[in-house]
Order: sequence, then C-alpha cells, then structure tokens
Amino acid sequence: VELLYRRGYEVHAVSSSETTHAGRASDGAIWHRADLLDAEARRALVEQVRPTHLLHFAWYAEHGDFWTSTENVRWVEASLSLLRAFGEHGGRRAVIAGTCAEYDWSSGGRYVEASSPLEPRTLYGVSKDALRRVAEAWGAERGISCAWGRVFFVYGEREQPQRLVPAVARAVLAGQPAPCSHGRQLRDFLHTSDAAAAFVALLDSTVEGAVNIGSGQPVSIAELVQLVAAQAGRPELVCLGALPERPGEPFELSADVTRLCEEVGWSPKLTLEQGIARAVRWHRRCLEVSDARGGAA
Amino acid sequence: VELLYRRGYEVHAVSSSETTHAGRASDGAIWHRADLLDAEARRALVEQVRPTHLLHFAWYAEHGDFWTSTENVRWVEASLSLLRAFGEHGGRRAVIAGTCAEYDWSSGGRYVEASSPLEPRTLYGVSKDALRRVAEAWGAERGISCAWGRVFFVYGEREQPQRLVPAVARAVLAGQPAPCSHGRQLRDFLHTSDAAAAFVALLDSTVEGAVNIGSGQPVSIAELVQLVAAQAGRPELVCLGALPERPGEPFELSADVTRLCEEVGWSPKLTLEQGIARAVRWHRRCLEVSDARGGAA
Repeated sequence: VELLYRRGYEVHAVSSSETTHAGRASDGAIWHRADLLDAEARRALVEQVRPTHLLHFAWYAEHGDFWTSTENVRWVEASLSLLRAFGEHGGRRAVIAGTCAEYDWSSGGRYVEASSPLEPRTLYGVSKDALRRVAEAWGAERGISCAWGRVFFVYGEREQPQRLVPAVARAVLAGQPAPCSHGRQLRDFLHTSDAAAAFVALLDSTVEGAVNIGSGQPVSIAELVQLVAAQAGRPELVCLGALPERPGEPFELSADVTRLCEEVGWSPKLTLEQGIARAVRWHRRCLEVSDARGGAA
Repeated sequence: VELLYRRGYEVHAVSSSETTHAGRASDGAIWHRADLLDAEARRALVEQVRPTHLLHFAWYAEHGDFWTSTENVRWVEASLSLLRAFGEHGGRRAVIAGTCAEYDWSSGGRYVEASSPLEPRTLYGVSKDALRRVAEAWGAERGISCAWGRVFFVYGEREQPQRLVPAVARAVLAGQPAPCSHGRQLRDFLHTSDAAAAFVALLDSTVEGAVNIGSGQPVSIAELVQLVAAQAGRPELVCLGALPERPGEPFELSADVTRLCEEVGWSPKLTLEQGIARAVRWHRRCLEVSDARGGAA
C-alpha cells in the first residue's frame, strides 16, 4: 500500500477484516471495509471508488484447506464479478494474483510463462488458471489491460504459524528441534515485501499476460531452514531427514523471471539472508511479547 | 424434456421467459420460471427442488453477439454458483453444455476430446472452457459426477432466422435467391431433437469429462444448403460462390464421436435429409401463417 502511495496513486485499500482502520490511514491509503464475496458490497465499493487500476489479491487462503476448498469456486465468481464492475465503471488496468500451482508440477522444473505447460492438479490451481483465462479474454474484448502475477513461494513477517518459515523459526527460538525432510527440494522464495513491490511494479507497467513473481534464485529447503535456524542462533536444532519425503513432491519448483526482470524491470531488494533475518526478528519479538504476557499472568 | 420424463425422471424445467407455463405441463415437466442470473432466484430454486441431476444449457446465445459479449462472463459466474448450490443440496450428477469453439480452430479438423488441443479464440469459447475446468475439478473434489457435452453445429425447428438453415429456407421458400460462399467447408450438423437426445443419454450414463455432441458425419455447407433448397422445392435458388469466403474460416470443424457412440452408447435417430425436411416444413408453416395474417390485415 505504501509503495503505491509513494508512486502517486490515490490508494483505496479493501479488507473484510474488522481490525482494519476505516478512512485515511498512516500508510497513505483510504481503507474500506467490505467483503468482496458479497455481491452488493462489491458493486457498491466499485461504484463509489471508480478505480482506474485494480490490484486483486483477495482469495481464500486458509493453510492446507485452500488447495481443495469449494471457496476457490466462490472466489472465481466474485473475482469475475469484480472485474466486470471494474470495467463498467472506467477501469483501465487490472493485475491479479495467480500462482505457480497453475503449472504442471508432475515433473517440476523452472517454469517459463510462455512455454511451460499449464496443468494444475488442485482445485485452487484450476480455479486461478480458469480466472486468468476468462480475465484475459474479457480484457482483450473490452480493451482493458490485464496482467497476472504467478506467485511462487513467499515468506515474511505475519505469516501463519503452520507455514514452513514460522514453524521452523518458532521451534528453534523456543529451543525445540525442527524436524524436516531431506530438504533437497529446490524452491523459489521471495520475501512478502518484495512480492508486494513486484506487483506494484507490474501494475505500474504496461506488461500484459502472465508474469512469474519470484526471485529467480531457487534454494533448497535445507538451505532455507538452516538459514532460519542460524538467524535464530540455534543451527544445531534443524533435523534434516527426520520427516519422510511427501509422495509425488516435485524436485524443483522455480521461476524463470526474465519477464519480471526485463519487461517489468524489477528485481528483489532483499537477499534471502536479509529477508529471513527480518522474519526471524519478527517471530522472536512475537514470542517475547507472548512470554512477557505469560510471565505477567 | 419429454425424453427425460419418459426415462422416469421427475423433470423440473427452468426458463426465464414469460411465455413458459408454470406448474406441470403436457410434456411431463414441472416448469419453473426463474432467471438463473439472479443469485437469489437461483438459490431458492435449487433449495426448493433439490435436484439429484442437473442438465445445464442456460447461457447467453444472441446470434452474432454471443461470441464476444461480457454476458459470457456473467454466465460463468452464474453457472459456478448454480453448481455449488446443486452440490450443497444433494446433487449427484451434472451435465453441462460446452461448445466445439473450445477447440483450436486455427487449423480446423476432426476433434477428439482427449487429444485435440483446446485453444478457444473467443470470449464465448474461453468462458465455456474455463467453466468446464473449474466444474471438473470441483466435481472431483466433491465426489459429484460431471460430464461436458461439446456441441457442434445444430439446426432445427424454432431456430433464430439469421442462422444458416432458416436464412436459406426462408429465402428460397419466398422465391428469393440464397447467396452462399463456395460452400466447401465441412461441418458436423445435428438436428436439435438429436442433440437433446444425446444430452439425455449422457446424463443417464456414468461417463465423465468432455464428450463431443455431433453426428460424426461432416457435410459440406454446399451439400447442406442444396438439401434445404431441394426440400423447399427450389434447388435452383442456391447461389454458391456469391458471397466471399470469411477470412480465417477453417476448412473442417467436425466431431469424432467415438466417446458418444461407444461409451454413452448413443447415435443420431434422424438422417440429415429427415432433419432438414422437418426444419423446412416448420419454416414453410411459419411463412404460411405469416402470409395468412398479412392477407387478413
């Protein structure tokens, strides 16, 4: 939000959550509280704001469950309806968050937008892929510029605690062992602040179609978790090989970022070490706050 | 509707049109008037009927305009929402109408469901294709059996007058010349009564995934229009070559019907001659009625 504001956009930010402030906030955005799954709220918001640009991230993202939930279908419906309303009220450019799970994971690899086969195996991946297909054809028909950012693996502050980086960070910060698989799988990790910056750069460009959002520098899971544990000061607590390999897990899921680098003109600001350091610092503070509360109770 | 009724289904038929009868009609169906684009009407209908089987044809079909209209996007939304409601209220099997325009038309050919590339070039084709993708993944996840009938070229009574068969029939029945292109293009034509019967057979089967709905016997446009004019008693009024070829028009768009014949166990009841005779008879009656009205005015 801040990045958009600094680029000169009048930023209207939408959240369904009660915790969000309404009106203009310190980050420069005008915040709206609306549930985008609610047809009337959705339409009223677009009619009120009449945005020229749309950056659409809202989706169902409950850890684990999101891969197979029927909520994915609801978000296809809501996203298409949002796009139509956007187009009817003067919208000019839309950028939507997609996923690396749109690609064929059966063999893994380094995915290139224009040439890697799309063969999503989950309802989540299929739903995102289908939304992109309709959004692009609709945009071409209506003269609305559309781009689609395929997000790979992101980590950062405020992550759900069951996810990889928080789970390892919290375990070792608490002095517990962090059991992992062999860790030889290669993945493309990007800090959330860089993922956000990539989307802002994409929105601000005229690039259309699918663009991988990644670092372009795959690392092994082993390297990642060892970095987390090292930043937490407990490298000895990582137990590689303690968990079995997941059946059918692809060896490599990584992003060719030629489009992002050369066409959008963007590259990450944080190294993996810097990003992990920020995330671990945040988890350390969370645990300290929760310890202090526990001590005072 | 009658075919379903005769197979023993309790048939609930839905139309948004005012002309339809409400309640039980002579065709054995219980007719409901509802606009499936209306979220509340849609949900109320499914809650009331709680269908076990769904045969979903409703879509935007305005001649010419349907290829590019934003209404296609609305029908993706409405169809997904209908499917979700169907699944939530005990639905077990859904069959949805797709289109041969989901296939790659750039080179044309005889399309096979499992192997022909899907590369729709219109918002209509993209929207249908995207709906199928989500419906199949959702069905697999929810344990709901789904099939998808890819309709090729249909003709019959009650066709919109701008379409090929009515346009030629009405011209020559009125003694006017019927200008056509060279007519060498091959297409797969099926009478609407056979298309309906194919869908009923598909619904009544356990076949899942995409199934071409066609005759499997491509004919040239020239052969078709000459048959229409001959049935109308005016073969000399067809002017082949009077219209230019449409740029980029594929030579052959035809259906491999192996799945329909061997897995569903269905084949057409009417020959092309019989089907065209029925259609021409109907158009002749329409013109006679309208002439009689004109005479009385």
